[in-house]
Amino acid sequence: MTDRSHRSRALLHDGPRVINVGLESFAADLEARGVPVLHVGWRPPVGSEGTIARHLAVLQDAATAAAIDAANATVLATITAAHPVLVDCRPAREAMGLEARVVLHAGPPLPWDRACPTMQAAVLCAIRYEGWAGDDAAARRLVERGVVALAPCHSRGAVGPMTGLITASMPVFVVENRAAGNRAYATLNEGLGAVLRFGANDERVIRRLQWLAAEAGPTMGAALRADDGVDLRVMMGQALRMGDEMHQRNIAASALLTRRLMPGLARASGDTAVLARLAEFIGGNDQFFLNLAMAAGKASTDPALGHAASTLVVTMARNGTDFGIRVAGLGDRWLTAPVNTPNGFYFSGYGPEDANPDIGDSAIVETIGLGGLAMAASPAVAGFVGAGGLHEAIAITDEMAEITVGEHPHFRIPNLDDRGAPVGIDVRRVVETGITPLINTGIAGRRPGVGQIGAGTVRAPLACFEQALAALATTIGGRA
Amino acid sequence: MTDRSHRSRALLHDGPRVINVGLESFAADLEARGVPVLHVGWRPPVGSEGTIARHLAVLQDAATAAAIDAANATVLATITAAHPVLVDCRPAREAMGLEARVVLHAGPPLPWDRACPTMQAAVLCAIRYEGWAGDDAAARRLVERGVVALAPCHSRGAVGPMTGLITASMPVFVVENRAAGNRAYATLNEGLGAVLRFGANDERVIRRLQWLAAEAGPTMGAALRADDGVDLRVMMGQALRMGDEMHQRNIAASALLTRRLMPGLARASGDTAVLARLAEFIGGNDQFFLNLAMAAGKASTDPALGHAASTLVVTMARNGTDFGIRVAGLGDRWLTAPVNTPNGFYFSGYGPEDANPDIGDSAIVETIGLGGLAMAASPAVAGFVGAGGLHEAIAITDEMAEITVGEHPHFRIPNLDDRGAPVGIDVRRVVETGITPLINTGIAGRRPGVGQIGAGTVRAPLACFEQALAALATTIGGRA
Repeated sequence: MTDRSHRSRALLHDGPRVINVGLESFAADLEARGVPVLHVGWRPPVGSEGTIARHLAVLQDAATAAAIDAANATVLATITAAHPVLVDCRPAREAMGLEARVVLHAGPPLPWDRACPTMQAAVLCAIRYEGWAGDDAAARRLVERGVVALAPCHSRGAVGPMTGLITASMPVFVVENRAAGNRAYATLNEGLGAVLRFGANDERVIRRLQWLAAEAGPTMGAALRADDGVDLRVMMGQALRMGDEMHQRNIAASALLTRRLMPGLARASGDTAVLARLAEFIGGNDQFFLNLAMAAGKASTDPALGHAASTLVVTMARNGTDFGIRVAGLGDRWLTAPVNTPNGFYFSGYGPEDANPDIGDSAIVETIGLGGLAMAASPAVAGFVGAGGLHEAIAITDEMAEITVGEHPHFRIPNLDDRGAPVGIDVRRVVETGITPLINTGIAGRRPGVGQIGAGTVRAPLACFEQALAALATTIGGRA
Repeated sequence: MTDRSHRSRALLHDGPRVINVGLESFAADLEARGVPVLHVGWRPPVGSEGTIARHLAVLQDAATAAAIDAANATVLATITAAHPVLVDCRPAREAMGLEARVVLHAGPPLPWDRACPTMQAAVLCAIRYEGWAGDDAAARRLVERGVVALAPCHSRGAVGPMTGLITASMPVFVVENRAAGNRAYATLNEGLGAVLRFGANDERVIRRLQWLAAEAGPTMGAALRADDGVDLRVMMGQALRMGDEMHQRNIAASALLTRRLMPGLARASGDTAVLARLAEFIGGNDQFFLNLAMAAGKASTDPALGHAASTLVVTMARNGTDFGIRVAGLGDRWLTAPVNTPNGFYFSGYGPEDANPDIGDSAIVETIGLGGLAMAASPAVAGFVGAGGLHEAIAITDEMAEITVGEHPHFRIPNLDDRGAPVGIDVRRVVETGITPLINTGIAGRRPGVGQIGAGTVRAPLACFEQALAALATTIGGRA
């Protein structure tokens, strides 16, 4: 990070001076922000691959580019006008119609034999929790014979952190996008210790899941159904002003949510002992809100999926093996590449050799302008993940603004004098600049059940965006 | 604010370039922060008053200055090593031994006939609440005849926001300074609407006070007595990292406190209806924590009072008529001057002509490095009070560093790459630079009961510090 650090210090001393290369729209954007720009009408070869340059050229045709820009404006408006509201908490079978013998997991589709050990351990544990098998060996046979099916959370309107598992009896939060009318789902964050999302597979995990299903979920559901809905957009906007970027850091949003829910939970519980347990569970977890930020992201981006001619990214997700993106103009098609392993700080006793490759649906928050994209809001996170201080945090958000097409009207950053977070990742800009989305993330141990061993940042693999570009050149370019 | 704004923008472009005039220690401090300094050994006349220059000269005598610096180091260590912990909530009569027919108020001592209408209205209401009189006329006679006595909160180990009233039956939080063993007290923040602290005087105010005494206070007390103490130092350090400066903005600390207290409150209440009311009351008030930040400030500074030879400020407080300070080396002597009226933004329908002069003990938080001194932590507050954005917020904290002698080891500011908040206001530096402490504050309406009509900043009057300097020149200079 030393190079970045030097670069951003120089930037802050001298102000940015930009020589714009490539899409002219960059220059216009920079000029609108008051940055001096010299536009050079020269197009470099991107990487060494002539095919990529050809795909870019197809999309740069004037009529095609205008159609794309118009489509992107619509998709951006869809994402930023989304109004996610927490309305319910019910078992996945009721809320999502999730049938028995299906295990939803994070990231793009994943054949069992390609799943990392952490993911496999979590799947076996979830099967035992549901009682579909009595032990790991029996559980494994069910998956191998296809009696238990695996599917991405994203394919069922849901998202999950790390392994991201959801099965029928688990309670899920229901988040309604009141702008578009769609709903998204996420489990209650399990907290720390032995937890399913890090691939722990023992009785402690199962007992906690049982308590969530028997007591926490029903109480939460009763309180939410008696409520007029918790406005997550307002809460997330507020938390962003309190140093949360809502991926690595959710303490403000978690505390605001607790404060907001407590009166209703008290009325719904009817039993102060139940309430004390629930208050302790929620209050003891600084990342409790993460799953809701993710569900809000899912609810906000789903309506944009399948919007023809748009080059904006609407999903980023990892399953521990592959990184996958989905693009508005390409429908539910996944573009995947091998995941990277995060860089960052390790807890005492751990190092890079212990790290699981990047995993979880949580990068949905970067898709709506939070997490790494909103690093300027969280200099404390920048420090925690090894990226530096305030200046470096601002430099990261500025870098992300180079690959996005707008600023979020509801997610404003005091450290940027209330400019909105950069939102709307454009496949064209990523490929042209070679700047890939920066994702803030926890680092999971590669041995199942070890849990979090550090925190850092990870880049989305460029190959996903190059594939998307090729597909867009065919579908959009072919049509325009 | 335009001048400040231009100045700070220029500062940020060019970096500060300082020509140091006066105390050489300034130059050393600036150099330690990497700011280029040209030290000029020339001493200007301060203002037009030769007496002030003479007082400064007395304290600049080498042996005296060394004794003062040593004393200030001890006082600074006392303040910054303080460890305020919330341990109880009880009626003021039990917690503080506060007797009947005494009304404690904010700020320095205040004769009834000099009290502003807002303060007078609140006192009459408190007397009616206690049942010492049946109506305002009878209440007024009790005060005028001296049957009911007025005294500063500060004289009884307590602090109160705005009018700051405390009487015997009101529940008070008990904050213990575990470093020094002393305790400080503050009422529960009443929230918004018709409230005593803004001089409202009607049945709604009294009903709320009665509920606080009958239900909220006892439940809170039971929960706290079953707890091992809420570490306010940790919570305030955390909230400072979340954009609270703990004067104008306490939303993070309030939410963190709610989250921390709820399990204990659930166990203590035994009745979910009581708990629901309490959760709603606490959760509906973004400034709930203010009174605790103040009590923490009081608990932290009281042990420094009376530390001979120190020129550090340990109290700043306003009663709506006078601004008063107390200085470690001057014991419990108040140095007072007429209060200023805050500058800032007014809520719709109000303007400067509606504003009450500055009032409340809340400036105790500035005394420990928070509030205006920690503006860099809260660019959102800087915007709200009309002081600008991130750059201006940082410039304000940098300005406050010119009149303080240290940085707070527990109150660190991410926007300053984790430097501590400036703490330890030195009377010498204030007088020599003419820079007075900047206080963030709500603006109260001058008509009783109108409540808050805006928010802004206010400067402590220089005259208080000039008087303190004269007194210090006599007491310290005379002894050294």
